[in-house]
Amino acid sequence: MTKIYPVVLCGGSGTRLWPRSRKQAPKPFLPLVDEDTLFEATLARAADPDRFGEPVVVTGVGHRTHVEAQAAGHPGTRVIVEPMARNTAPAIALAAHRLPADAIMLVCPSDHHIADVAAFREAAGAAARLAEEDWLVSFGINPTGPETGFGYIRRGAELPGGFQVERFVEKPDLATAEQFLADGNYSWNGGIFVFKAGTFLDELARHRPAMAAAVREAVERGHEDGAAFHPDAGAFGRIEGDSVDYAVMENTTRAAVVPVSMGWSDIGNWQALRDARPGDEAGNRTRGNVELVDCRNVLAETDGPRISVIGLEDIAVVVDGDEVLVTSMAGAQKVGKLGGAVNQ
Amino acid sequence: MTKIYPVVLCGGSGTRLWPRSRKQAPKPFLPLVDEDTLFEATLARAADPDRFGEPVVVTGVGHRTHVEAQAAGHPGTRVIVEPMARNTAPAIALAAHRLPADAIMLVCPSDHHIADVAAFREAAGAAARLAEEDWLVSFGINPTGPETGFGYIRRGAELPGGFQVERFVEKPDLATAEQFLADGNYSWNGGIFVFKAGTFLDELARHRPAMAAAVREAVERGHEDGAAFHPDAGAFGRIEGDSVDYAVMENTTRAAVVPVSMGWSDIGNWQALRDARPGDEAGNRTRGNVELVDCRNVLAETDGPRISVIGLEDIAVVVDGDEVLVTSMAGAQKVGKLGGAVNQ
Repeated sequence: MTKIYPVVLCGGSGTRLWPRSRKQAPKPFLPLVDEDTLFEATLARAADPDRFGEPVVVTGVGHRTHVEAQAAGHPGTRVIVEPMARNTAPAIALAAHRLPADAIMLVCPSDHHIADVAAFREAAGAAARLAEEDWLVSFGINPTGPETGFGYIRRGAELPGGFQVERFVEKPDLATAEQFLADGNYSWNGGIFVFKAGTFLDELARHRPAMAAAVREAVERGHEDGAAFHPDAGAFGRIEGDSVDYAVMENTTRAAVVPVSMGWSDIGNWQALRDARPGDEAGNRTRGNVELVDCRNVLAETDGPRISVIGLEDIAVVVDGDEVLVTSMAGAQKVGKLGGAVNQ
Repeated sequence: MTKIYPVVLCGGSGTRLWPRSRKQAPKPFLPLVDEDTLFEATLARAADPDRFGEPVVVTGVGHRTHVEAQAAGHPGTRVIVEPMARNTAPAIALAAHRLPADAIMLVCPSDHHIADVAAFREAAGAAARLAEEDWLVSFGINPTGPETGFGYIRRGAELPGGFQVERFVEKPDLATAEQFLADGNYSWNGGIFVFKAGTFLDELARHRPAMAAAVREAVERGHEDGAAFHPDAGAFGRIEGDSVDYAVMENTTRAAVVPVSMGWSDIGNWQALRDARPGDEAGNRTRGNVELVDCRNVLAETDGPRISVIGLEDIAVVVDGDEVLVTSMAGAQKVGKLGGAVNQ
């Protein structure tokens, strides 16, 4: 079987996990769920040399040092340093240009958590077989609740190991999300994609010709720097950024989906992080010097000072350096808008 | 009119206000409600030289430095340094011995808050007139809710400016407290007393003769040290400690009560402290670098790090040095049992 090349997109800043995630120590590079960082775990789960090729990491100038330090255990890792962020479609196109046209790419965010690595690998294999037939495959995460924070994918006709995509759906309201859950034919769009490099570039050229041309020019004028590749900033800067969903997946007639249950979480905020960590009998999750009295489903973590909590449920208390965050789980979505998160 | 001598009992440690109140910086000596400390405010409200004599402060070795520093604005303050704590009855007896037998004593805790000083002074005058007639007078705080944390006093026959005490009642359960509130003849026992020094010592000798004799011996064998008086440790140490309520007030036939509404609080925990401070429109009280989003009736204060709180009601968040406390208001009673508060 053809090897699968992991393409790790290493962009986001994770401000909703402030104050632990900061400009100088962003979300992908923190050991949030267990002792590995999210980025390390992303590399590790696609590191079986029988199935996977060397990873390609697409990142920004600010993250490069973190990437190189944490990828040190994976020799052969190639890094593409974007001169500026232009969303996921151009980032994936850069990686596609740096791989053979018939290479199977497995595009993954660098800051998600996947509990069941075997299920992930199995789905990657099924998706790769479809990609060999020039399908552009999305992982379809089997929904565990009526989430309103994710896009959805509706399954169409069956394919070997998956389905054609009937349609992609924007983030729904709660009533619609409950309908999707009851329907049973909808998956979450987790931002994980499998396709042949050449197929992706062909589809990009068809649906976003200007973007495709600009990426090609940025690669042709780019330069190497050790294991890192630098696309040309002038050409790349002219691109109008867009997501791979909008630019390609929603337009191509060859979109497929492989449903999977793999304990996936985007660790999108403190509530998601709490849920991804194992709790004690009362559902509490603590790290560092913490005393809890009469608490349930509390996440409390500190890098120094002791935290003492009494009589609370479903809150997060996070102490990091000179910042103390206390939020209800319902309020966790608003963390990124706090003064501390915005002006760090 | 005879002058009234304030006798300030400066003992408690205030562990339920940990981590702000600490062994090295105990509750009476902190600016908890406003810019004055509770002890400073206690001295200030009984500092009118037309009505009040120089105060007597009864305290322990550990508190002496704080007492002398914060009483510096009240020349003539006398300090009695207890060699060990023996509860309120012996402490008051020490002060009584150091005053003329016909002096009117106004016994006050050092760590309560009184918003309406005029009402306090008026009640002190009414109580002093009863004390002249050898009544032992309790301030009876008009209850504002069915509190279960205080003892109650039931009014009996009317006296000029007050009432005889029909009986003292231990801390009630909630149903009983609600009954007391509805009844209208019950006051809270706020631990503020007015009596003649000689009358108090006579009643103590009648109901606790061993204690009275030991205090007398401790005073006779004591020694001066500048403005401070040190009772003899051997004699004082032999005393079996007891409260003024148990030792004297519940036994004497001359107990009286003067009802008063004076915005009183014992600042007994973080909930009481929140309620004693003025709030903003949402009922929030903050000190230091604090950002609140979607919060109501939250107390948040910090001596350094920024606190950010989202989506919570009726909690306290307190950052002090290396300690971070987060408690529901309902849980505030348990703060003193936390590991940090016990092992400070």
